[in-house]
Amino acid sequence: MAGFAPIGVVVGILGVLYAVYLARWVLRQDPGNEKMQFISQAIATGARAYLFRQYKTLAVLLAVLAVLILLAIDLPRGTYGLTMLGFVIGALGSMLAGYLGMYVTTRSASRVAQAAATGGMGGALLVSWRAGAVMGLSLAGIALLLISGFYLVFKAVTHDWAVPLVALGFGASLVTLFMRVGGGIYTKAADLGADLVGKIEAGIPEDDPRNPGVIADNVGDNVGDVAGMAADVYESYVVTVTAAIFLAAILGLPAQYIEMIILFATLALVATFVGVNLLKTSGVKHPLSAISMAIYATIALSVVLFFIGSFLLGIEAWRALALAAATSLGALVAPVIVKITDYYTSYNYGPVRRIAEQAKISPATVIITGYGVGLMSAIPAVLVIAAVLGVSYAIGFYAVPVTAFGDYSKYLAGIFGTAMASVGLLVVAGIIITADSYGPVSDNANGVVEMAGLPENVREVTDVLDSVGNTTKATTKGYAIASAALAALVLFIALIFEIVNAAAAIKGMSMLSILDNSLKALQVINPSVLIGAFIGVLLVYFFTSRTLEAVGRTAMEIVEEIRRQFREKPGILEWKEQPDYARVVDIATRRALGEFLVPGLAAIIVPLLAGLLLGWNALAGLIMGAIVAGVPRALLMANAGGAWDNAKKYIELQGLKKTEMHKAAVIGDTVGDPFKDTSGPSLNPLIKVLNTLSVVFAYAIIFTNIALGIYPFGLFPLA
Amino acid sequence: MAGFAPIGVVVGILGVLYAVYLARWVLRQDPGNEKMQFISQAIATGARAYLFRQYKTLAVLLAVLAVLILLAIDLPRGTYGLTMLGFVIGALGSMLAGYLGMYVTTRSASRVAQAAATGGMGGALLVSWRAGAVMGLSLAGIALLLISGFYLVFKAVTHDWAVPLVALGFGASLVTLFMRVGGGIYTKAADLGADLVGKIEAGIPEDDPRNPGVIADNVGDNVGDVAGMAADVYESYVVTVTAAIFLAAILGLPAQYIEMIILFATLALVATFVGVNLLKTSGVKHPLSAISMAIYATIALSVVLFFIGSFLLGIEAWRALALAAATSLGALVAPVIVKITDYYTSYNYGPVRRIAEQAKISPATVIITGYGVGLMSAIPAVLVIAAVLGVSYAIGFYAVPVTAFGDYSKYLAGIFGTAMASVGLLVVAGIIITADSYGPVSDNANGVVEMAGLPENVREVTDVLDSVGNTTKATTKGYAIASAALAALVLFIALIFEIVNAAAAIKGMSMLSILDNSLKALQVINPSVLIGAFIGVLLVYFFTSRTLEAVGRTAMEIVEEIRRQFREKPGILEWKEQPDYARVVDIATRRALGEFLVPGLAAIIVPLLAGLLLGWNALAGLIMGAIVAGVPRALLMANAGGAWDNAKKYIELQGLKKTEMHKAAVIGDTVGDPFKDTSGPSLNPLIKVLNTLSVVFAYAIIFTNIALGIYPFGLFPLA
Repeated sequence: MAGFAPIGVVVGILGVLYAVYLARWVLRQDPGNEKMQFISQAIATGARAYLFRQYKTLAVLLAVLAVLILLAIDLPRGTYGLTMLGFVIGALGSMLAGYLGMYVTTRSASRVAQAAATGGMGGALLVSWRAGAVMGLSLAGIALLLISGFYLVFKAVTHDWAVPLVALGFGASLVTLFMRVGGGIYTKAADLGADLVGKIEAGIPEDDPRNPGVIADNVGDNVGDVAGMAADVYESYVVTVTAAIFLAAILGLPAQYIEMIILFATLALVATFVGVNLLKTSGVKHPLSAISMAIYATIALSVVLFFIGSFLLGIEAWRALALAAATSLGALVAPVIVKITDYYTSYNYGPVRRIAEQAKISPATVIITGYGVGLMSAIPAVLVIAAVLGVSYAIGFYAVPVTAFGDYSKYLAGIFGTAMASVGLLVVAGIIITADSYGPVSDNANGVVEMAGLPENVREVTDVLDSVGNTTKATTKGYAIASAALAALVLFIALIFEIVNAAAAIKGMSMLSILDNSLKALQVINPSVLIGAFIGVLLVYFFTSRTLEAVGRTAMEIVEEIRRQFREKPGILEWKEQPDYARVVDIATRRALGEFLVPGLAAIIVPLLAGLLLGWNALAGLIMGAIVAGVPRALLMANAGGAWDNAKKYIELQGLKKTEMHKAAVIGDTVGDPFKDTSGPSLNPLIKVLNTLSVVFAYAIIFTNIALGIYPFGLFPLA
Repeated sequence: MAGFAPIGVVVGILGVLYAVYLARWVLRQDPGNEKMQFISQAIATGARAYLFRQYKTLAVLLAVLAVLILLAIDLPRGTYGLTMLGFVIGALGSMLAGYLGMYVTTRSASRVAQAAATGGMGGALLVSWRAGAVMGLSLAGIALLLISGFYLVFKAVTHDWAVPLVALGFGASLVTLFMRVGGGIYTKAADLGADLVGKIEAGIPEDDPRNPGVIADNVGDNVGDVAGMAADVYESYVVTVTAAIFLAAILGLPAQYIEMIILFATLALVATFVGVNLLKTSGVKHPLSAISMAIYATIALSVVLFFIGSFLLGIEAWRALALAAATSLGALVAPVIVKITDYYTSYNYGPVRRIAEQAKISPATVIITGYGVGLMSAIPAVLVIAAVLGVSYAIGFYAVPVTAFGDYSKYLAGIFGTAMASVGLLVVAGIIITADSYGPVSDNANGVVEMAGLPENVREVTDVLDSVGNTTKATTKGYAIASAALAALVLFIALIFEIVNAAAAIKGMSMLSILDNSLKALQVINPSVLIGAFIGVLLVYFFTSRTLEAVGRTAMEIVEEIRRQFREKPGILEWKEQPDYARVVDIATRRALGEFLVPGLAAIIVPLLAGLLLGWNALAGLIMGAIVAGVPRALLMANAGGAWDNAKKYIELQGLKKTEMHKAAVIGDTVGDPFKDTSGPSLNPLIKVLNTLSVVFAYAIIFTNIALGIYPFGLFPLA
């Protein structure tokens, strides 16, 4: 068998080429009049400037880490700098993903606006959907290309190729973490600042060009929602697929099992080629159901292809079918999570209406009830994740032929079933990114329409597209969290075996001979594990707290600047003077970059110190704590934010704008903004950074533990 | 050696007698004029009516559980109904504690108000402090009496006396859970409802007798803050001390180690007799520092007595001293946690001022920043708990002579060190309850002064006492959470050994022979454990969500009722008509009792089902998840609530009442109310109910696991 990795490389390249073709189509569309182009240009310039400054700030840190990886991992392990290489390429991939997202969106916005003006709903939907597809196809294509390609190259160079592959995921998730935090602070501080003074104090509409914060607000959408989400889903893809391959390698599974992972990812991308063309745009009345249909069709096609593809692998048919079923189970999680999110965040159901009802009595009860809804929304979603973990584990338990680990063999086989489920959830990422990227494109188009003063009927079209975009954005957040959770669980268990592997290598013993004692150190009643678990939860708290407060602080500075401009240049509000957009952009840029380092560094330093000094089992506890606390918290923050947003919209729909009730709902929405767009989304890359970092540095951690005499039991020797 | 348990019984009785003496002194004070007495009477009647209805509602549930315990535990184990008896007495103890708290507070309020009118600050402080001491001494006395007494009785009747002793804790924590939830919903819904219409809409001051919700609000203080907190600290005491005794028994420690626990508890109560008399009241200017001094003196005296007492035990001096050190470490946590809480919730420091600063821009950023402060405040507190866990574990590791568990012996010895630390933290409960109960007494006195229309200078005195009471209330919350965390950790590990013990009994094997395999099922990478951990976190979420939303719903109904009364009887606001207080009291009572069953039942049913059907290791994961998620969340909610409250006060102090800035801060304070007084405090008893329930039902759980073929590895067999 030649293997499917070369086919993965080819299909990955095809994905990128298809994306280029679609991008050229989008760029051929009419970019609208000069004013529209000017506004688009201003936003694009601000976004590019921010991204480049962000990348420059990161470059130093990445260089230091790269050298550290070279010295602490590649040299002692004799892996020719491959781990460092994987890390650097992974990091560059996330940067590229973010840049691409930003590039496509800013270039498309005025074209979607123009299409809305000339072609109505159908035309505008087609342009924005194809712009989204550029992102979806290029990111999935690049990820598949990188993983398949590096798998081939690394394997040819060394038998220690598995950790360098995870380093690809580490680089990707680390950069994404910083982009999520920095971009999240930028976008919500600008949004908050612009809205608080513009909408509430000055009484001018959103996106009104008289607002000095309006360009910063739109730049924020691009560096936060667009670049951040693009990097996030790309990173999830890379981490999940490399984690599954890593696990197969460390469990000593036959090569066909690794080929299966690549094959299924390839087939899903093929299904996505079909899926992006299934959107019905002409004469469309309900863009949301059209988009949902395209997503469902892609998932259904992927599932069919998984089952067909499973016969190509050359392993026993029942095993192949069982694992195709586990993978399909993962793929089916996507629509289930989307439905759950929809129930808790759409105004068609009870929860959001309960929040809206509370606006009759006070903003405080809106916050209390919305927070309650957010907490509750985490329950079904996490139960689905837990159920998938259990079922896919059971499938793996029976169907995966692990034999190298004595009594523990079947126990470990189980987790490969979960790995396939996480791959299944992720390989539909292409179509999900397409639907998600469509959102900010429409949002930006809406901004262009408003700022360029296009007629009301155009605004109506982009308004509909924008509100559908809000829904796809909210639901894909749930999807991103679920995929992060499954990926993290797989990586968590893979980490334990990389630890055992590293210890066996250092001590020159077989993995099997040290397995039993190593695992004893992982009992939940071990104080090291418990202390680690508390630290993991606290890291999530620290992260959330820092990002929330950063938004508050930055917004405050922006509010003061906008108030100052209105005060010193009273002509602005009467259209007689030009506001100074650049100063607000500058404040947001400076503060976001000032605030994003501390939480990001904490995500690197805390787990490393815990692993080195408290022992590897404290690190395992830390990761478990971060996962079990971080996943529900990410759902809470995303869904509470979405629910508050839509409670406000629901009240607006009833014609109650500018009432006390509406004001109360606006306060809820404003609290929700950094919940759903800054702190919540940062938790996904956080839990994956903790995992991938630990896998990459496992060798150094165990080496130090042994030197300090705290291996294998941590600070509290068992015997 | 005769043992210290009889001395414990005697000192416990002395504590109760001393409390009776102080109560008589308080009741001899002048209760004030007729109007004051009438108001006090109305509050007392409402509170008593609520408590009795609550107890009646609980009676059915408790009876069912008692029968279940008899059938599922006492009969198969042959323990003569002692487990059931322990459960029932424990439950009645919590009810009595709540009733006592309510009785003393409502009887004292008008007397404190009168003392403020005639004796100024010193006189009022003395009366309210002694009223608090009635609570502190009687609860600590009753707890010590019950534990020492039952230890003597149970041990005389059966060798299986340890589980019945934990049942005492289960009964206590279960009733407390319901009291915390029901009382918490009542108090905050009434507070919110009364404030939203009274203070914000009608513009009348707090506690104004024209407000139809004012009696319900004051009743709420008594059934929530007073009865709830009294039951909470009492329950913590019982659970912690019985857990330590249980652990000593199950580890097979010599009887002296159990005697040590009772001796230290007894010595701490003796120190408390001294401590309550150390408060300097005459001519006092700063009541808070006087109270702090009395607390510190009691702790210092307790520590000295622990070291002296350790020589009386008849065990090797170095072991006794080491364990006295571990116990003292626990006692010293109290002031450290108090300081941390103070830093994050007092307006003398940065965090609260940052929140107040945000009020300049909007209520939303007040919420965002306050939530961030709450998250951050959990970090140092949990790190202290984790450090105490580590250090006390290390002490136990070396100093406790466990030998019965082979290789695991020292590993298990460690946790007895932590048990002693948790005892140390708890035995200072008497003085802490004294300081805490003093708060609501002053609060109620303040209400009486306002409603009875006493002169401004009296109000000034009770205002100072009330604000000091707010601080002691906030800081003792942190104390209660820390003690819950340590108690839960000890119980958690004790549970694992009760599981092994039960399995050994059922299978007719020695504990040692099944220990190794049993503990293997507890690895953090076991999917049952992970799924359990997720369920534990979700249970905390469910609980928080239900309680928060219940407050919102109930407040809404109260708001509508108060608005209706103002609308239909316009004479109320002009002092011409009497508001209908009883209807609001009735709504609050009915709703609180309607809402408290579901979360309470979930705390019983979810862990039982998880243990029975998913396996005992899933239950262990569940408890760990609930602890690591619940403890930081309890701190977050308590401290965010306290910080918002004081940010508002800070703004008021600057003379900015009735500004936009103040309004923004009031919204934050209102959000914080159910955070700090309903959902947050309910989490303490929740994590202890999960633990004690599991210990009590361990036998039935293991029996079922074996019958279902899922013992010892849960759903996923290891080998």
